[in-house]
Amino acid sequence: MQSFVSLSALFDEQFNKRHFPDTPKNLYDASQYILNIGGKRVRPVGVLMGNELFNEIDPDAYHVANAVELFHNFSLIHDDIMDKAPLRRGVPTVHINYGESTALLAGDVMLVAAYEYLNKINTLHLHHILSLFNKTAKQVCEGQQLDMDFEKRDKVGLDEYLNMITLKTSVLLAASLQMGAIMGGASIGNREHLFEFGKNLGIAFQVQDDYLDCFGDPKKFGKQIGGDILSNKKTFLMIHALEAANDIQQKELSLLLNSNPPDKVERVQQLFHDCKADEWAASLKEKYYHLAMKHLEDIAVLSSRKKELEKLAMYLLQRDS
Amino acid sequence: MQSFVSLSALFDEQFNKRHFPDTPKNLYDASQYILNIGGKRVRPVGVLMGNELFNEIDPDAYHVANAVELFHNFSLIHDDIMDKAPLRRGVPTVHINYGESTALLAGDVMLVAAYEYLNKINTLHLHHILSLFNKTAKQVCEGQQLDMDFEKRDKVGLDEYLNMITLKTSVLLAASLQMGAIMGGASIGNREHLFEFGKNLGIAFQVQDDYLDCFGDPKKFGKQIGGDILSNKKTFLMIHALEAANDIQQKELSLLLNSNPPDKVERVQQLFHDCKADEWAASLKEKYYHLAMKHLEDIAVLSSRKKELEKLAMYLLQRDS
Repeated sequence: MQSFVSLSALFDEQFNKRHFPDTPKNLYDASQYILNIGGKRVRPVGVLMGNELFNEIDPDAYHVANAVELFHNFSLIHDDIMDKAPLRRGVPTVHINYGESTALLAGDVMLVAAYEYLNKINTLHLHHILSLFNKTAKQVCEGQQLDMDFEKRDKVGLDEYLNMITLKTSVLLAASLQMGAIMGGASIGNREHLFEFGKNLGIAFQVQDDYLDCFGDPKKFGKQIGGDILSNKKTFLMIHALEAANDIQQKELSLLLNSNPPDKVERVQQLFHDCKADEWAASLKEKYYHLAMKHLEDIAVLSSRKKELEKLAMYLLQRDS
Repeated sequence: MQSFVSLSALFDEQFNKRHFPDTPKNLYDASQYILNIGGKRVRPVGVLMGNELFNEIDPDAYHVANAVELFHNFSLIHDDIMDKAPLRRGVPTVHINYGESTALLAGDVMLVAAYEYLNKINTLHLHHILSLFNKTAKQVCEGQQLDMDFEKRDKVGLDEYLNMITLKTSVLLAASLQMGAIMGGASIGNREHLFEFGKNLGIAFQVQDDYLDCFGDPKKFGKQIGGDILSNKKTFLMIHALEAANDIQQKELSLLLNSNPPDKVERVQQLFHDCKADEWAASLKEKYYHLAMKHLEDIAVLSSRKKELEKLAMYLLQRDS
């Protein structure tokens, strides 16, 4: 099995092109703009890795990989509109550059273009892939809705938050791997273990992402540090802090959640630190990393074939071993 | 072949139900809300009529009809957000009732749900139907983008406007009929004539819609009368007026397009009347009606089978004969 870097290069080779017609220029330039910003392409390469874990890569896997990456970018464009996010990977978001209406439509046509790629695959797997793709697409939308609902609530339980981020971010990685597995002819059992590997890896990644949004290096992170704090997001850190804070800290946190002082980010960061939410998040990330690895172990293929997926997990979670 | 009313009842019987899960309640209630407002269901019944013109109705035609109606409603939700429309069929639009972010997502999941219905059809027609559906979906988005682009321009040519409304509104009716024809085993020639019938009928309908937006009865029309005037839309009426107006009328029109006096609607209505834009629109509607009928005539099936499509055209265009 090839490395993430090798498969990423193979993916890019066919993906790095214009995916849209020339006109209407406004519309399709906006769609192409976000693709040109780049990204790690973890999900589409996940399709290829999920495929190659069981078989030689099916040429159709590239169509599915393209569809997954377009779907992901569709969701980013629309999420950025909803979150009123000014930056994505350090550059202006689509709606900032092209206006909200064009960004909305640019997302819509991106989603349709994803289905155009899916329609290129052989009839043999079409129903099965479409079914998983549709299910996942709805779950991602559901996750985004829950995320917005939670912003308006005072308290969110850890289980609720886990369910939300599983839907919003993890299932797409999990389903990408599984779509590859379907095309590789994997058994149901193996497909499910691979899905769970991706799902738990995605959760661990999100714990890390919440951490980095608060404590990360702005240059490396690409997004505005403290963005989650400013929008009162109930992140893993906030959920733990709300549970672990003592009476004085509770009061301060409640005050900060209901106001926007200029030093809001710094004060919430300090509170998270005082409640040891940062340490707790590190152990939670470990827990889901190990769950992911357990499911990877349980896939019935030679362990040598799994090496590259192990490396992918370490790379995504910034681990040395 | 059954009448529009009969087929409409058959369609409604299986369509009038909840199409979405219960939770997240916010999200799926918003999606279901617009379906409950109702509508003429012309496009999905068009699928059934296009199918029955050539054959007995394929049970899969209902899945395609549902997909078309969900797609149409997806586009309405998103268009209403972009147009900041307060009303749809006399009741508040989705974004007014549920907020813009939830409306955006409710449109997104509606589009995915459309593809779920498409994925229910037999493998035999799946690639072909998906291909036409995807092409049409992109065209509808392109039409909406052109519509927004035109609002910012001082002048729009009739040909440009015709292209825009063909994309934005006519191709979906045309493609609906054609998808039915595909499932009915129609020849390429017959399919294309049916498509052109739908396309020209759609254009004639849009000419009428532009007319009614300006001169219609508010109780019957459901939308705000003069909405196009207030948003400076380059409708058929405006395009003609800009070409036919004398110097004094040009000056008045230009003034009105660049300001928002309280009597803007009445003054533009009067100008349209003075330029005979209303008479011109009536003759344009006739022209496209006759083009549509010519293509219907050219479909190689017994003319008795076409009666219900002729009646549909008369009904949509409010004609007695």
